[in-house]
Amino acid sequence: MLNPCVLKDFTLITPTAEVRVRTHGGRAKCLQRLIRLGIPTPRTVALSFEAVHEIAEGGRPDTSRLLSAFGRTPLVSVRPSSADPDWGGPGAVLNIGMNDERCAELSRTLGKDVAEAIYLKFIQAYAIEVARLDPEPFEEAAEADHPVQAALAAYEAETDEGFPQDPAHQLAEVLRSMARAWEGVSARLLRQARGAPIDAGLGLVVQDMAPGLGAGESGSGVIRMIDRITGERQVTGRYKRKGRSGSKRDIIYLARDPRGPSMEQEAPALYEELVGILEVCRRRLREEMEIKFTVSQGNLMVLDAVKVDCSTRAAVKVAVALAEDGILTPQEALLRIEPMSLTELLHTQVDPAAKRDVILKGIAASPGGATGQLVFSARAAQTSASHEIPCILVRRETTPDDIRGMHVAQAIITERGGMTSHAAVIARGLGLPCIVGASGLTVSTRDKTITTKTGRIFREGDLVTVDGSAGEALAGAVPMLDPALDGPFRTLMRWADEVRDIGIRANADTPDDARMAETFEADGIGLCRTEHMFFEPARLMVMREMIFADCETDRQAALDQLLPMQREDFVELFRIMAGEPVCIRLFDPPLHEFLPSDREGMMGLAESLDMPLSRVTRRVEALSEFNPMLGMRGVRLGVTMPEIYDMQVRAIFEATVQASRQAGAAVVPEIMIPLVSAKREVELVKTRIDSVAAAVRNETGQSFDYRLGVMVETPRAALRAGEIAAHAAFLSFGTNDLTQMTYGLSRDDAGRFMGTYVNNGVFHEDPFHSLDREGVGELLLLGAERGRKARPDVTLSVCGEHGGSPDTIAFCRDAGFDYVSCSPYRVPVARLAAAHLAIRDAQKAESEA
Amino acid sequence: MLNPCVLKDFTLITPTAEVRVRTHGGRAKCLQRLIRLGIPTPRTVALSFEAVHEIAEGGRPDTSRLLSAFGRTPLVSVRPSSADPDWGGPGAVLNIGMNDERCAELSRTLGKDVAEAIYLKFIQAYAIEVARLDPEPFEEAAEADHPVQAALAAYEAETDEGFPQDPAHQLAEVLRSMARAWEGVSARLLRQARGAPIDAGLGLVVQDMAPGLGAGESGSGVIRMIDRITGERQVTGRYKRKGRSGSKRDIIYLARDPRGPSMEQEAPALYEELVGILEVCRRRLREEMEIKFTVSQGNLMVLDAVKVDCSTRAAVKVAVALAEDGILTPQEALLRIEPMSLTELLHTQVDPAAKRDVILKGIAASPGGATGQLVFSARAAQTSASHEIPCILVRRETTPDDIRGMHVAQAIITERGGMTSHAAVIARGLGLPCIVGASGLTVSTRDKTITTKTGRIFREGDLVTVDGSAGEALAGAVPMLDPALDGPFRTLMRWADEVRDIGIRANADTPDDARMAETFEADGIGLCRTEHMFFEPARLMVMREMIFADCETDRQAALDQLLPMQREDFVELFRIMAGEPVCIRLFDPPLHEFLPSDREGMMGLAESLDMPLSRVTRRVEALSEFNPMLGMRGVRLGVTMPEIYDMQVRAIFEATVQASRQAGAAVVPEIMIPLVSAKREVELVKTRIDSVAAAVRNETGQSFDYRLGVMVETPRAALRAGEIAAHAAFLSFGTNDLTQMTYGLSRDDAGRFMGTYVNNGVFHEDPFHSLDREGVGELLLLGAERGRKARPDVTLSVCGEHGGSPDTIAFCRDAGFDYVSCSPYRVPVARLAAAHLAIRDAQKAESEA
Repeated sequence: MLNPCVLKDFTLITPTAEVRVRTHGGRAKCLQRLIRLGIPTPRTVALSFEAVHEIAEGGRPDTSRLLSAFGRTPLVSVRPSSADPDWGGPGAVLNIGMNDERCAELSRTLGKDVAEAIYLKFIQAYAIEVARLDPEPFEEAAEADHPVQAALAAYEAETDEGFPQDPAHQLAEVLRSMARAWEGVSARLLRQARGAPIDAGLGLVVQDMAPGLGAGESGSGVIRMIDRITGERQVTGRYKRKGRSGSKRDIIYLARDPRGPSMEQEAPALYEELVGILEVCRRRLREEMEIKFTVSQGNLMVLDAVKVDCSTRAAVKVAVALAEDGILTPQEALLRIEPMSLTELLHTQVDPAAKRDVILKGIAASPGGATGQLVFSARAAQTSASHEIPCILVRRETTPDDIRGMHVAQAIITERGGMTSHAAVIARGLGLPCIVGASGLTVSTRDKTITTKTGRIFREGDLVTVDGSAGEALAGAVPMLDPALDGPFRTLMRWADEVRDIGIRANADTPDDARMAETFEADGIGLCRTEHMFFEPARLMVMREMIFADCETDRQAALDQLLPMQREDFVELFRIMAGEPVCIRLFDPPLHEFLPSDREGMMGLAESLDMPLSRVTRRVEALSEFNPMLGMRGVRLGVTMPEIYDMQVRAIFEATVQASRQAGAAVVPEIMIPLVSAKREVELVKTRIDSVAAAVRNETGQSFDYRLGVMVETPRAALRAGEIAAHAAFLSFGTNDLTQMTYGLSRDDAGRFMGTYVNNGVFHEDPFHSLDREGVGELLLLGAERGRKARPDVTLSVCGEHGGSPDTIAFCRDAGFDYVSCSPYRVPVARLAAAHLAIRDAQKAESEA
Repeated sequence: MLNPCVLKDFTLITPTAEVRVRTHGGRAKCLQRLIRLGIPTPRTVALSFEAVHEIAEGGRPDTSRLLSAFGRTPLVSVRPSSADPDWGGPGAVLNIGMNDERCAELSRTLGKDVAEAIYLKFIQAYAIEVARLDPEPFEEAAEADHPVQAALAAYEAETDEGFPQDPAHQLAEVLRSMARAWEGVSARLLRQARGAPIDAGLGLVVQDMAPGLGAGESGSGVIRMIDRITGERQVTGRYKRKGRSGSKRDIIYLARDPRGPSMEQEAPALYEELVGILEVCRRRLREEMEIKFTVSQGNLMVLDAVKVDCSTRAAVKVAVALAEDGILTPQEALLRIEPMSLTELLHTQVDPAAKRDVILKGIAASPGGATGQLVFSARAAQTSASHEIPCILVRRETTPDDIRGMHVAQAIITERGGMTSHAAVIARGLGLPCIVGASGLTVSTRDKTITTKTGRIFREGDLVTVDGSAGEALAGAVPMLDPALDGPFRTLMRWADEVRDIGIRANADTPDDARMAETFEADGIGLCRTEHMFFEPARLMVMREMIFADCETDRQAALDQLLPMQREDFVELFRIMAGEPVCIRLFDPPLHEFLPSDREGMMGLAESLDMPLSRVTRRVEALSEFNPMLGMRGVRLGVTMPEIYDMQVRAIFEATVQASRQAGAAVVPEIMIPLVSAKREVELVKTRIDSVAAAVRNETGQSFDYRLGVMVETPRAALRAGEIAAHAAFLSFGTNDLTQMTYGLSRDDAGRFMGTYVNNGVFHEDPFHSLDREGVGELLLLGAERGRKARPDVTLSVCGEHGGSPDTIAFCRDAGFDYVSCSPYRVPVARLAAAHLAIRDAQKAESEA
């Protein structure tokens, strides 16, 4: 018998043995827990990370002594046991110890067919996985009349050696092979991509085989108590039962099922025992487990138990149910859900009841549904987005150059690629529906067409719906279902809101966005980009009239037309948000974004404005800029053409009065000035806003308050935040632009080298995806500190795409910010991430106390 | 008699009276100094700033008592006396006290013609300047048979009152009028534009008239001892002598002159007396003075003395001469010269001996000569500049939109405008030759032609020379003279170098620039922009071949062609700079700057590369950027296409070896990496540079050193200067780009609103002209502090256009920077400005001690 004290790093798992996740891996630890719960498990020896590492380095373990733990003629399995099952690992190898002698022996007890089948499988596994031989000869051998002999011959032919008969030698080779596989380059890259640290270790468990064979009730199976997709409580899994024929096996249901025989009916005691074990696991391991079991002559053995690998929806349901059953605290339940995983729940889906004109099929690379016009380049996607036209980006395959286009598209289709292609990975990251490897499809980027298998041609601008969950594209627009936010989801979010200590607002530009923000229970709107309201065709025309106005009067006339439209927008926003704060950013983009850039567009504009083309061209030229990002936009426009802001704030105030009357409660709008770089800009704009407010109060006879703030998006505004805060009730850091300016890096142009940069570690991460703490972050801290010093009650926040990332939320929480604002779809992620941070801080404080 | 103690703020100027520049103005103080020197001056009363301000506010001075200081029947003048004569002020009013009675009296002593002439002039001056009447009736009256009567009648007709006869009333009105004029809006704006503080005061001096009339030697004049243009010692001025006719006057020379009679010949004693007075003034007032004098019956009176208003060249000569004569210390002489004024001395001039084919004449708005191709838009000028083709920008008139074009043009011609037009002001600021108001000329921006008075037509691309000093444009190229840096200039600069304590380097991209830097005695080259070497047509073609290279091999082949060209550039630079440091910035601009942007250019390129047009178009499109300023340039190109930097550093090192051998002394090149935002960029580039250095050392068998540095031009580089300095021997702050990024403001696009912004005080000054101390300045200080902390011996500097401004130099000196680098033409300005700062600091330290 094995004495665990003698064989260092080999540990027989007993209730009191020293087995830890961080030294022996999760599987070993879990087996110990099962043993402690009195659940029948085969005898198991755990090899520590250190032992396996030594083996990989060439150390030769004393496998004879190890095997002595399993009796005189052991048959064992070896399974991987890393700290986190998600990191992958080598496959299990079963029936180690099989050889000619053992085969003959088993033939006598189990029958020749069964014994030879076991031996053949072991030879195959050993040859392919351990000896790394070509699989073909062994597949052929299995078809031979005498498969075992054929396989043994094949082994000898390939290796010039007989198949190893010594169990200790077999085991030593298996351990060596598995240890080396873990250290291989591709395994390492794969697990690092899944978040494993660079020095993640592998443990192994060597377990007595409990083959589930023999007379009486025998078989093997897998069982869990929930549906892995929905999370509903329901016994699922399968039971492979030794059939009546003796050697053949039948797969039967576990729970009673109208479709066929079940264990519940045929072996009810066994079924009860299994269900009982799962109940014990749930209560004591505080998790829904899936167990692998065998039954040998009516005796149950649990070989292994792992957490059920389920969908996010199911995970939420499980965590909430565990908490409601008092097994977890709500806070523990919150920590069970990875915030980013929630995005899976939040997508619009194609209505399953809708009529489907399927035009192409491919790999369902990223879920959700979206409708838009086809575009064939990232640039066209951006143009489309700048005009608020939803689009579907179609490419043969995507490259980092396409990132910007992907960011603004509603969905992505690529002709080539698989689940891990660039398009697929990015789309999942962005939460965009995506179909890759759309077979049979021909994309011509040049002609801007898709030709389908059946010869149908779709052109740029054609309306198409992508069903990313099904991997199908449909012609035209199709009814959609809003994301289903079910009871457990809402419960979890309520718990999150109870513990989190930083606000989460949504960026919402239109009433539709605002409704989404309400759906996701944002703490208000943190950024409403008003210019998005001007891209609607009717408004765009008036906007252009304003840009082409010859005199103050004409310009004012155009603005007078826009005023009631804006007012209605704001009334609607205030109504939807029902008292939650709404932060409205004044007009920001350069005027040329509202003008056509090509000759055709200019011709059209000349016609509709009844103006010579030359005048249109001249104006477009005059407004064009070398670096629009750094040009005549934001408050610069507000200072030089103040009529636009005058109109906007009048619309805001008139809407405030109207909404306050309708709601019977005071609405206090927040007005934000973009692209500030000097305090005087704020003073100038503030003076005019105050006078518009006074005028509206006077005209309506109703008093109202408003809060004026500044969007801090130039490095200078961050540096001068002290004097700016003197005029600003709030400072909201626009980290998109701030990142561009701090790095001197245009997001629109960075795609060309960002891949190279991140791969070479020049930037740890793309600073547009992940807040750069060192540079941009310092400006945030400086700005916050100075703003707060000048005005202790100043409200601090981050808006922009970083706002929804857990990393940014952690940063902002540490810096004492009041809220972050992010896209509505990111709001639940952010709420949960904020809750995690608060809980972890409390845990840390508790453990320190 | 006036008792100065009784009449507060009226001070009779005596040697001991309390008269100060800051309370009574410069003229009053200067008169007191003359009196102290025993120089004969008329009795003078000074009115303080406070007194004049009270008058402007409506206070009524006791002019009767004031006049009592001047005897029974006084005739007096009133002249302005502000703290600085450059600030302007109301014109003098003479002969106050003239009335019918006095006219009759004077007719008896001086003759009727003389007396009436005096009276008429006073009536005219009073009517127009004081009573603000229309000048025409009084001009007509002067033509009448009896001018005085006609003028008196005109006065009565215009005012319904008789011409005031009371001298006290006359004086009160004159004082009121002058006091109010000073407070007027236009006068205030004008003097503020000349640097006056907002509360600058005006003093007035009331002086007894010494009319220079009467029997014997009588007359009036102005005399100075130097030529105002050259500064040569030479008596200049004029003497208006009462002629032999008695009433008519002759203007004669002062010093003996072959062209006609002179005072020196005709009144030698008087001449000697005047020269003696000037000598005394020079020695005791320590300045070359110009004096106004009258001679009445042989008696000299000095009415006023002011510093000679002379050219910068003359001012330098005077200051150096005063120092060499022991009247000033060299440091005082240095302080006498405003650094910015030196730019006047540094310009290339059209050779006076050259043949001149004058094609147009206009106002000589800014001096110097330049040859270039005609362009008709700011954009064309920039395109031209980007290809290193000198150009002359022609506009009907310029607007702020043209600024960028003006910056890069060699000279400017406008059809319209005068000395204070936009074009004229800006051109002088930039030191560019400029002709405005080119009369008779027709500019068609549309056809891109100039049509001259004589019908000659010049087109875009035609070569023209602008002689800004003469206000003429000449056809073709014309020989030029380099700026004449004469002895006194060199002496002054030597003194400046002796006291200054911060280095001044030059930005020099080509050997020509380097020679200019040598001429202006820069302490080395602070910024050599190597890409400028690639715009020469032959090189541009190779550059384009490189951009279009399909594979590594082709790209390398193109770079191999560029290598020897670059090497020669550097050998030449090192040779010219003869051991002074040369800081070479690696390739910076985006590649698309080397490609044509219009269809025609692309056609041409397709032909010369023997490539389909579509491929050229595709490449140009692929390289085009939304915000080139923030795009794929600088070190980003160096990291992603490292072959370019490899070629450049090889050229530098090979040139280093060659130049060191030639000079017999080690050359240590400085290599600077542009647009850094992360330390890893520096590490990557450094690794490659080190390996090229090792290769060149190995190949040539010669060892050499080099210094690697970073151009800090992104806010992030400034913030991360600590870790960057770990790899950088020097940090040079590129304030152009740093300003653009800190403000989020493209210099190319800011012209459209910069005027409004500066006028409204949103920005105190254009941050591209004047370093923004609050924002950009803080980043400089942070970067310097962090850089120095990480590496105490790091060399710190500013390059970019701010570098040459006295303000920036002051900032950099205070921050302990090692040097600034500026355009070669700014080097003398910077050397002098640095000297001023050092002297003032020493003075301050002394006065505090």
